[in-house]
Order: sequence, then structure tokens, then C-alpha cells
Amino acid sequence: MNRFEYAAAAASVLALLPFTAGHAREAASPLYGVSIPAGYRQWQAIAPSEERGNLNEMRIIFGNATAMKAFEQGTRPFPDGSIIVKVGWKRTASARDDAALGSHQAFVPGARSSIADVQMMVKDARKYRASGGWGFGKFENGQPLSLAVHQTCFGCHAAFVRANDFVFTRYAP
Amino acid sequence: MNRFEYAAAAASVLALLPFTAGHAREAASPLYGVSIPAGYRQWQAIAPSEERGNLNEMRIIFGNATAMKAFEQGTRPFPDGSIIVKVGWKRTASARDDAALGSHQAFVPGARSSIADVQMMVKDARKYRASGGWGFGKFENGQPLSLAVHQTCFGCHAAFVRANDFVFTRYAP
Repeated sequence: MNRFEYAAAAASVLALLPFTAGHAREAASPLYGVSIPAGYRQWQAIAPSEERGNLNEMRIIFGNATAMKAFEQGTRPFPDGSIIVKVGWKRTASARDDAALGSHQAFVPGARSSIADVQMMVKDARKYRASGGWGFGKFENGQPLSLAVHQTCFGCHAAFVRANDFVFTRYAP
Repeated sequence: MNRFEYAAAAASVLALLPFTAGHAREAASPLYGVSIPAGYRQWQAIAPSEERGNLNEMRIIFGNATAMKAFEQGTRPFPDGSIIVKVGWKRTASARDDAALGSHQAFVPGARSSIADVQMMVKDARKYRASGGWGFGKFENGQPLSLAVHQTCFGCHAAFVRANDFVFTRYAP
């Protein structure tokens, strides 16, 4: 068991510990051990995105100050300490806005998506060397999803966006 | 000509003056005389939204610190100095993300919407008494749209969202 595997195993054990409601945001993702950072909803927005189909989500992807500086300057790889958080809300038709527009075409955020309301990446080139320097976390109602889910993160990021330091989101100016 | 009409007329005249490219963001909207504020893209996000149809936009609505405090605390009417800025990007299908997801359902921001890339509201209860305390601005490529366009803003906001101090956007937690 190398350093990374040990850290991942330890994180997995921690993730199984019970958390009180007041500490739900401290729960760590299996495999990577990343937690939802305080105050991310106040961070700058990198871009919006949308995923139709079963998820039917509208999203905003937020970046902390370290990540935003890298986006603005085009720095790759992202420096250690960069955190990217994606928040998904259910795409909800707005009868009010449709009336205002005189057509049926307006959508607004409904409840947080129940499938994955917060997904995040944390950069630590040494700690997460085996996964491109990124630790991943996918949470529902503040609780991390399963180890099996987290085992899928890096493979997909590596297959599609390795050249962008494994980050899908592009800054929307 | 009352105080408000005078200010509006003066703003309209100012809006007709030529601006160099370097000062494009200082152009003021007709009728209300509001300008695109510096740094709005770094403000907090109030919510995402989407408008299909001809516009086919995905949007983020940003608020300055004064507006965000009012959103978070539920303060209505919004205090003077509140500014809300809506940015629209063309909804663009992402072949890359579709490949990652194994389906055809992902959209990302394309170019800024050419029809109205920045729309904004500025609160000044006294200056804009005749329009619910809000001054409106709708810009394309940094330049304000016509007086006729700006004459439509308040009527629609008053008809649909008077009870929310004339603001359509709700905070997406």
C-alpha cells in the first residue's frame, strides 16, 4: 500500500463514521477524502452548464480564489489548493417567466438535484499524484456517494480532458 | 419635466455621445442612465436561468455585495446601491461532454448572446421613484440598446414581480 493508497483507505474509513447534522459538511469522499468547503456558494462562477436527460440539471461551477486566478491567467496545471465545485439544480419550467415572455421557454432552478448536488475537485499534486493531482468528491445532501461512484471520476476526466489538466469546465467570460 | 424625467432625458443625451472602445463600458442606458459596473463578472451568483426559443440562452444572474446581503436576509425592498446583472451566453451543445456522458444532453456556454449580453437593474429609490426605485440597462457588446427597448423594462417587471420589489430572480441556495 503506497502513500496514496494509504491516504485513500484512511479517508474511506473516515467517510463511514457517523456525522451529526451539524457536521454533515465535514463528511469526506471515499477514495480521495475531500470535503465540501465552507462558503463555496459565495465563490466566483466559472461558468454555467446544463445536463438534460434523467438528471435534467442546470448548474453553476464555482472556483475558489486559487482556481479563479488560474482560469483567468490560463495557468495549467492548476496550482495546489485550487478547488472547483459544481452545484446542480433541477431544471424547472417557470410559468411566471413564460407569461412575461409570452411563450413557453423559461427555466429556473428548482430544488438541488437529488442525484449529485455538489461535485468537486481539489488540487494537491503530491497527495493525488495517482489521479492527475486531483481529489474528487460527489455529494448528495451533504453526504458523499459510494466508493464505487468515486472510482469512476478520474478515468472519465483522464479520457476526455487530460489536456486541460483534467478539468471539463472552461471559463465563460 | 420632473426630476426623474430630467435625469432620464440627460442620460439619453449622454447615451448618444460617442465612446471609444476603451470606454465602452461607461456607456449609459437611455431613460435610466445606468452603466455596466466594473468587475460584475467577479460578483456572487444569485442563480442560473435558461431561456429557450430564439434567444436560446443560458444565464447567470450576479449581485453586488449590497444585493447579495438583501437576497440572503430576504430584505425587501432592496436597499439603495443594490445592483443585479444578468449575463447570457448562447446554449451550445457539447459533443465532448456528450461523449463523456454517453448521450446527447450536455450544453455549455458559447459566445455571449448577441441580443442582450448584459441586462441590469440598479436600485436608487429616489432617483428612480417612477420605476419602482430601479434603473434598468440592457446592453449588447457593451453598448446600450434603444430607448424603445428600455421603455419596456419596468412595465413587465411591475406586472409580474411587483411583490418581490420588481425582481424576477430568486436566490438559488
